[in-house]
Formats: sequence, C-alpha cells, structure tokens
Amino acid sequence: MQHRRVQRPPRIVVLGAGFGGLTFCQTFRHPTAEIVLIDRQNHHLFQPLLYQVATAALSAPEIAQPIRAILCDVPNLNVHLAEVTDIDVAARTVTSEAGVFDYDYLVVALGGRTTYFGHPEWEKFAPGLKTLDDAQRIRRELLMAFEKAENTSDPDERRRLMTIVVVGGGPTGVELAGACSELAHTVLRSDFRRIDPAHAKIILVEGSPRLLGQLPESLGQEAHDRLVEMGVEVRCGVRVLDIRKGEVHLAEGILLAENILWAAGVGASPLAAKLGCEIDRAGRAKASQDLSVPGHPEVFAIGDIVALVDKDGQVVPGVSPAAMQAARHVARQIEDELEGLPDARRPFDYWDKGSMATIGRSAAVAKMGSLELTGFPAWAAWLFVHLVFLIGFRNRVAVMFQWAYSYFTYKRGARIIYGLRRPS
Amino acid sequence: MQHRRVQRPPRIVVLGAGFGGLTFCQTFRHPTAEIVLIDRQNHHLFQPLLYQVATAALSAPEIAQPIRAILCDVPNLNVHLAEVTDIDVAARTVTSEAGVFDYDYLVVALGGRTTYFGHPEWEKFAPGLKTLDDAQRIRRELLMAFEKAENTSDPDERRRLMTIVVVGGGPTGVELAGACSELAHTVLRSDFRRIDPAHAKIILVEGSPRLLGQLPESLGQEAHDRLVEMGVEVRCGVRVLDIRKGEVHLAEGILLAENILWAAGVGASPLAAKLGCEIDRAGRAKASQDLSVPGHPEVFAIGDIVALVDKDGQVVPGVSPAAMQAARHVARQIEDELEGLPDARRPFDYWDKGSMATIGRSAAVAKMGSLELTGFPAWAAWLFVHLVFLIGFRNRVAVMFQWAYSYFTYKRGARIIYGLRRPS
Repeated sequence: MQHRRVQRPPRIVVLGAGFGGLTFCQTFRHPTAEIVLIDRQNHHLFQPLLYQVATAALSAPEIAQPIRAILCDVPNLNVHLAEVTDIDVAARTVTSEAGVFDYDYLVVALGGRTTYFGHPEWEKFAPGLKTLDDAQRIRRELLMAFEKAENTSDPDERRRLMTIVVVGGGPTGVELAGACSELAHTVLRSDFRRIDPAHAKIILVEGSPRLLGQLPESLGQEAHDRLVEMGVEVRCGVRVLDIRKGEVHLAEGILLAENILWAAGVGASPLAAKLGCEIDRAGRAKASQDLSVPGHPEVFAIGDIVALVDKDGQVVPGVSPAAMQAARHVARQIEDELEGLPDARRPFDYWDKGSMATIGRSAAVAKMGSLELTGFPAWAAWLFVHLVFLIGFRNRVAVMFQWAYSYFTYKRGARIIYGLRRPS
Repeated sequence: MQHRRVQRPPRIVVLGAGFGGLTFCQTFRHPTAEIVLIDRQNHHLFQPLLYQVATAALSAPEIAQPIRAILCDVPNLNVHLAEVTDIDVAARTVTSEAGVFDYDYLVVALGGRTTYFGHPEWEKFAPGLKTLDDAQRIRRELLMAFEKAENTSDPDERRRLMTIVVVGGGPTGVELAGACSELAHTVLRSDFRRIDPAHAKIILVEGSPRLLGQLPESLGQEAHDRLVEMGVEVRCGVRVLDIRKGEVHLAEGILLAENILWAAGVGASPLAAKLGCEIDRAGRAKASQDLSVPGHPEVFAIGDIVALVDKDGQVVPGVSPAAMQAARHVARQIEDELEGLPDARRPFDYWDKGSMATIGRSAAVAKMGSLELTGFPAWAAWLFVHLVFLIGFRNRVAVMFQWAYSYFTYKRGARIIYGLRRPS
C-alpha cells in the first residue's frame, strides 16, 4: 500500500491497551500521525500477576496503571474509555460507546477472554481470571468459603466448603493451585478456631497427560512434584464432562467444591470475527505474516486475538512478549509506509524469550533459550522478570514490598473482602 | 451486679470490630471468660482514611486489616463474619446470620451510618462514605465523570460533569473537598487532551455559618481560607432543600453536578433501638455514665452508637479515641465484676485528645489540649497520628510509601476504575 494522500494527518486507531496496544502507542513515532486508543477499562492490567490479586497476595491497584498516566507524554494521542461494539473493515470505521472513529490504519489488540469449550453455562459456576473484577470476585469467594466453613457444624458441608478445584494445568492453573495451597495451608492457618485451613483440599485437574504442556516434560514433572509436596492433589489426563453449582463432573466421579476456578480455555475477543478473515477454533484471526489481515493491509491484529505462524514456521504463543514484539513490528511497518519507504511490509519474526511459571515459595520452573531452571533460581528469575515488566515505579516498589513482607512473615495483606454487602 | 454463678465460663458477646469493639477484645483479660466477636465484614476499617481511598490516593486493603489476623493471639475468642439481625435484651440473646448467641455481657459497638435528615431517598444521588464499597463507588464515579467529560462536546454538559458538590463542612467534608480539589487540579491535570481538569469546580456546602464546628473558630476560618486558595468554592450557612439525580437544590438556586458527596449526617446503627433504652434524634442509645444501658447493667454501648455526657458534663464526640477509651473502661469494669471486686462500676471519664482535619498538601488544622496548630506542623501531626493508629506494620509502610510518592510526584497510584463492566 502506498502512502495515501489525505487532507488530515493519517489516523491510526488502536483497540485495546494490553501489552500489544500499549507497546504500539509507546513505540510508534511519526511527526503528524494521530493515534486514537480505545479501551473498555481506564487501566492497563498486568495479567501475569492477576492470580496474586485473586489469592489476596496483592491489591488490585498494584498491578494496574491508568492508561492516561502511562501515555501522558505521547504526542498526538487520544485515549477513549469505551467499549468497542463494531468494526467495519470495508467502511474503515470502528463503532464504540464514545462514537464512531474512521481510520487509515487499524491495530486490533483486543486480547483474549475465558472460554468454556462450548459450555458458556459453566462460567457462572467456575469463574475465569481475566479482569480485576474477576480477581476480586474469586478472592471474595475463596475467603468467604473459609468463613462459612467456620460457621458450619456439618462435617460434609465443611469439607465441601474447604475444597477448591482448579481446572487447567497451564501456567495460570499451576500458579493458582500453588497460591491457593499457600493461602489455605500457611496464610490462614492461625486465623480460625473451629476449622483448620491446613485441611483444605486443592485439586488441580488437567485434561492432557501432564502439566505445563508448553514447557519441557522435565519442568512439567517438577511443577507436578512441587505441587504434590505442597498438598495439592494433581489429576492429569482427566476430562471435565460437566460443571454445575459446586460440582465438577469427571468420568471417574463428581468433585464437590465450593470454589471451582477455571484456567483452561482462552479464546479471542469475539470482535475477531468482524475482521472479515478466517478465524481458528479459538476464535482467533488468521493474520498474514506481516500481521495484517488478508485483504486488508491497513488492518493489523496482534496479541491474543491472532493465530500466527511466524516466518520460521514457529507457532506464536499468546504471551505478552509475543504481543509486544508484534506491536513493535507493526509500528515499524506503518512508520515506513507513511514515510514512503520501499519494502515496508516484512514477515514477523518471533523471538521466544522463554516461559516460566511460579509454584510457590522459592519454587518455580523456567525455560529461557536452552536454559532450564527450577527451584530458587527459577523463582528469583520469575520475580525479576515480573518486576521489570510491571509498569510504574510506584507499583514496582509496592509489589516488591508486599512480596518481601509475605516472604518473611508468611502473611498476606490483601485478605480483605469487599462487595460482600448491599449498600446499607 | 454480682458475679453470677454459671456452669460454663462467662460469655461476652461483642458486636462490631471498629475501634471500640476491637479495643475491647484486645484489652479485656480474664482467665476463663469467652469472647464472641461478630462483624458484618471480615476486616477492621480505618475510617479516618476512607476519603483517601475514595479519591484514589490509597487502595482499599491499605486501610483495612483482617479481623482474624489482628486478634489471632487473643485466647478464648471466636470471630464470626455475620450480620446481626436482632438483639433481645430480655432473653439475653443476639440473633445473627451465623446463629443465635446468648451472653452474660453484651458490648454493642456497631458504630454509625450515613443518615439524610429524614430523606433516605437522597442516598441514591449523594452517596455517603462509611465502607470500602462506598469509597470504591465514589472513586469510580469521580474518575468516570472526567472520562465522560473528555468524550462530550457539549460545554454545559462538560461543566456539569466536572462539578463536584460536597455536602457537610465537618472534618470528612473538608477532607473530601480538599482531596477532590487536589485530584482534579493537580493529579489529573495532564491526563486529558480535550478537557482541562484544572477547570473542575468543587463546591463545599455547609448548613451552619462556618466549617469545622467542633474546632475553634480560628481553625474553621483557616480551613475555609486554605480551601478557597485551593480553588474550592465554600458556601456556609446554606441549607440543602432537596437532592435529585445530579441536582442539589438550595434556597438560592440549583447546583448541577455529576458527583454529589454526602458528608453531613451521621446517625447510629438502627440496632440501637433494640437496646430498650431512650434514643436521641440521631438514633443513638442514651447510656448510663458507666456506659451500660439503663435497666440492663450487663449491656454496654460504646462508640458512635451511643449518646453520652461524661462525668465532667462533657459531651463525648463520635470519634475513634472516645470509642477506644470507652472500650477500655468497659473491659476494666467487666473484669472487676467477674473478679467480684467492689465498686466495679465507675462513671466514664473522657479524655479529649484533640481533633484535627487535613485540607491538602502541607495544610491541616489541629487542636490538641490548648495547642492550636495550622499549616505544615498540623499536617505533620496529622500524618503522624494517622500512621500510628493505622493497624498493621504492612499497612503503615504501604501508606507511608504512597504518601511519600504522592507528595514528591504529585501523582496518585490508585486511579483504577473497577466494577465498571458487567462480566463479559
């Protein structure tokens, strides 16, 4: 596509202020082009630490940063807090709560959402973890289960209240199960008089034969062994047939649990279907190698909304480094095109920085290049990487303090239930 | 009352884990007596800093501490997270969501709630500030008003969206108005591209002729002058006739404002009426000088639920030091009575430690004994007192860090809106 002659400066509309959308806005440089960024929240959320908000280790504002504050120095940029309701790639317009925007370029970075393998009715009984509201709801229900257990005298009911089932053995499921185990077995240990939270049962259910399928088998086994040591019951190769209120139905029987957490299915934003290209089973847009949408070179899709094989034939995973690299790639291409440079379009080359998951205190697994780490070194690497990528000096210091506090005292500060009562 | 011979150890039921109830549990000492503490939340809330959560300076968990964690070392104590629904002083029972409890002594420390001078219908349009949920709702609506203003092009609507009316010129109203002014005029200043939050209008309305009626007139005037300097429009001697959605009706006209915050009326918990004694206009129980309820020497009322003149004829105000002193007084009396000591009942002697209100950056007013402070010294004293009384080492460090951060950067970290969207 040639640099189109337009009366007004070229306008780039960016949808979503996750890792992809934000990185685009931070790295795109052009003297006149105008950027319009639309997000349904006022904050960028550091999703990798969301499970710590859900398990009361961190408070919500510590892993979020106002979008306007992050981008306040970027010139020619307008932020709109609005839900996007439609994309019309033929008319080149985006419809949102804040009005209709036309664009010269569109960068779709709307991210993923929890999916239930065709069973949306499970959502009510097994919440997923995508937003701060999800995390606060899960925190409330986890803490309330122990409160209810303290107030009941029926041993079966007490057992049910003190059981947590985590569905999905990827990084989120492993981290959630580990954090739930620490919450129950360590943090809450001395809080109650009639129940012993150390007797809480945490069950991790995974459909495939092992945990952490995207990491080498030895690391999956390490995570498995550490979770079992921490008192988590790990069940691999087990399929979930049905989920009802407080019940997980497996082929081998029914698990009764007050809390069922869903960490199994990630799909794309339903707006992917509006891009007019092929979508895969998870609802992700099948983009071209330059990250544009086939037939619409002015529309790019990056991050969890896109299904992509890079130029080396590598499947690009739905992780934040991939979204950030894709954002930079798209920014360079648009800059070059607006400058009228030749060969502005290039295939995306994903650089796999590795992958990691934390299990608990001083326990994690990590793969970086050919390096495989476990135990304390992996855990230290995990801490370091997460602090570096967390946005905002204030958040980094606050999170570092909370972690140090929890590490040395075995306590967690954010064990606060709100949203419990209707306004009085 | 003589020490009653009972088969089981004496049981003391405490209602409410605010400053009064918590102090009672922390200071009461008896080898066998059993304490049952019932609260409708799982946390003790440091209400004096609630306005900072509402104005995005602090996050909710920083001013709250789990009750179980605070009291985990107190022997013979059970905590129940439950709403109290009835008190039967004749049958000596308390009914709650967690069941019916009988007692030998009852300590009622249920605190206050926002009241609307006989206009409960105003609550919907002018939220009060009593709980973390209130604070989060106000924070969301304050921040959303600026987001909406950024998206509108109608100048009248923009002006309305950027107007905040605070009703009530006591400490809470003064602190809220000052904090709203700082939020709009300093913190949000560079966040927006189309609106200038510095043009936001904050109006403080007070019915009596001056601010901070409980402090000396010179300090009320000081607060008034500092607020005006900060761009707050202060209107004293003005009565609110009606409140509707986005409208405050005064004799002199109607104020149009997206946000109306109510800091005017504090009344007692409606359960005060169950104590079978006289109640005052604010719904507070008129207790005897030993803090028991007339006719029921085994029932004590402390804190904001009680209307009291102490033995020197001094009206005991509804502030946390009064609740804490009353709690200690009641604890000593019950201990002595259980020991069979003579003269176990004594009139309560309130020691007025003073009163203070912060207005903004380096600006506060304080009265301690005969000492009157303004400006930086008052502000430093305010910081010191609030950090000392905030419960929990973690919270103290976290709040100190947030304050230092805000002081040096003119930013606020907790500008995060959640609860904005229905789950997707």
